[in-house]
Amino acid sequence: MKIAFLGPEGTFTEEAALAFVGQASLDATEKDLVGYPTISETIEAAAGGETDNAVVPIENSIEGSVNATLDALAFDAGDIAIERETVMPIRHALVVSPKADLAKIKTIVSIPQATAQCRRYLREHFPDVPIRAANSTAEAVEQAAKDPTMAAVGTKLAAELYGAIFAEVNIEDYADNQTRFVLLGRESSASTGDDKTSIVCFIHKDQPGALLSILQEFAYRGINLTKIQSRPTKKALGEYCFFIDLQGHKDDIGPAQALKCLDCKLRSVKILGSYPRAK
Amino acid sequence: MKIAFLGPEGTFTEEAALAFVGQASLDATEKDLVGYPTISETIEAAAGGETDNAVVPIENSIEGSVNATLDALAFDAGDIAIERETVMPIRHALVVSPKADLAKIKTIVSIPQATAQCRRYLREHFPDVPIRAANSTAEAVEQAAKDPTMAAVGTKLAAELYGAIFAEVNIEDYADNQTRFVLLGRESSASTGDDKTSIVCFIHKDQPGALLSILQEFAYRGINLTKIQSRPTKKALGEYCFFIDLQGHKDDIGPAQALKCLDCKLRSVKILGSYPRAK
Repeated sequence: MKIAFLGPEGTFTEEAALAFVGQASLDATEKDLVGYPTISETIEAAAGGETDNAVVPIENSIEGSVNATLDALAFDAGDIAIERETVMPIRHALVVSPKADLAKIKTIVSIPQATAQCRRYLREHFPDVPIRAANSTAEAVEQAAKDPTMAAVGTKLAAELYGAIFAEVNIEDYADNQTRFVLLGRESSASTGDDKTSIVCFIHKDQPGALLSILQEFAYRGINLTKIQSRPTKKALGEYCFFIDLQGHKDDIGPAQALKCLDCKLRSVKILGSYPRAK
Repeated sequence: MKIAFLGPEGTFTEEAALAFVGQASLDATEKDLVGYPTISETIEAAAGGETDNAVVPIENSIEGSVNATLDALAFDAGDIAIERETVMPIRHALVVSPKADLAKIKTIVSIPQATAQCRRYLREHFPDVPIRAANSTAEAVEQAAKDPTMAAVGTKLAAELYGAIFAEVNIEDYADNQTRFVLLGRESSASTGDDKTSIVCFIHKDQPGALLSILQEFAYRGINLTKIQSRPTKKALGEYCFFIDLQGHKDDIGPAQALKCLDCKLRSVKILGSYPRAK
């Protein structure tokens, strides 16, 4: 049993992977987790059979959808589907070397999403300190751990891992910062009575009113949508596909009928998976 | 006349700002352009009166909406509105120091969006070379210009500016890579007969079917929508507002009526601007 996750060690995605492993049905231990450098490589690892599963972020309550994940699922993911979801609170900490002096910090480092989520705190406490980009919060923490003139926006897990300390915790601007992670794999889960289904609808070129008619199929059957997201089809500005999360399992009677009708109307409908709804 | 743009010099946004300046009605020269380090600071410069206008990217044909721009317009932009739009092709080049040897490149550097857009080229030609993040394509080019073991994904404008050369041009995975930029300011433009209007709809909490009823107002009046984008309201997962671009000017009869009806139905509708449609 091997699970790919968006690495390196100490990212929020590793925490999510550990949460999935903690769920009884997954027969894996911490040792079976393998970090990959990018979302597309993480998903490809599972799609290509190098690992059994992949864990990636799909949506954040502040930043919105994770585009790299949506695109890989819509265009490249082969026969893997979403098996499970989990929602985790995102808490950012200001992480520094044990030798650091906060008054002498010369650089703030993290991924742009994380520094964006702490904009207010950073502006107030470090108004003139330049912000540098890193590839992951964990990489940022690793850099700050080695350089006492640097402070990283990162996780507690990463701070422990790289021998750094917290100068401040919960520095995020919005308290309700949550990220939804998904476990991808090849096992389809049966209907549990409280499921969600993720789909992507590709429409014909120049099909105005397409989204309206998609929404009507669900409204007519009283099916709740929990997410709608348009994304470019990577062809030209103004050409979109629609990512939709709906309540119910694809084999439940209502969703099954709606999906059949959409399949007749649209260019194509790809089912990204049915999975138990996270509490 | 001063125009803020997302800097530093040599970014695509500066190219867009120069394109806006080139349009007859803007009375500015190259000297009036001022680069700001982030999208929110660029928009705040104009909103706070430090500059007359701001130029920022709003949507890319591959990556989708530029979230920082949408959020600033929806939540922070004060009384400035979209005055103008322009669509520019995005061409990425591999930029190196004149002293570089391509076989000895040890690091690829750029903003994550740019390296993501050249994923295939980089994987083929530099399969084992680590990718490092920068704050802008221009910053990446500046670094590569100084370090012959580094290659940047950047623009021709930046390469000229920092004394670097192109090792390869047009390395993007998708040929139809375009970005839409907007000029923000305080002058509202009158209806020209071929305009677009950008709005953001805030819905009441637990208002299922809200998007359906929004779309029906436009469909009923035969108004074409050129973009729909849901964004989190920064409160909790599953709470959205909707960014919509429609054809027509807010003072044209159809759009004016639709907007009045939406204002009665929804929590609020914010008009981000009416402006001539880019060719």
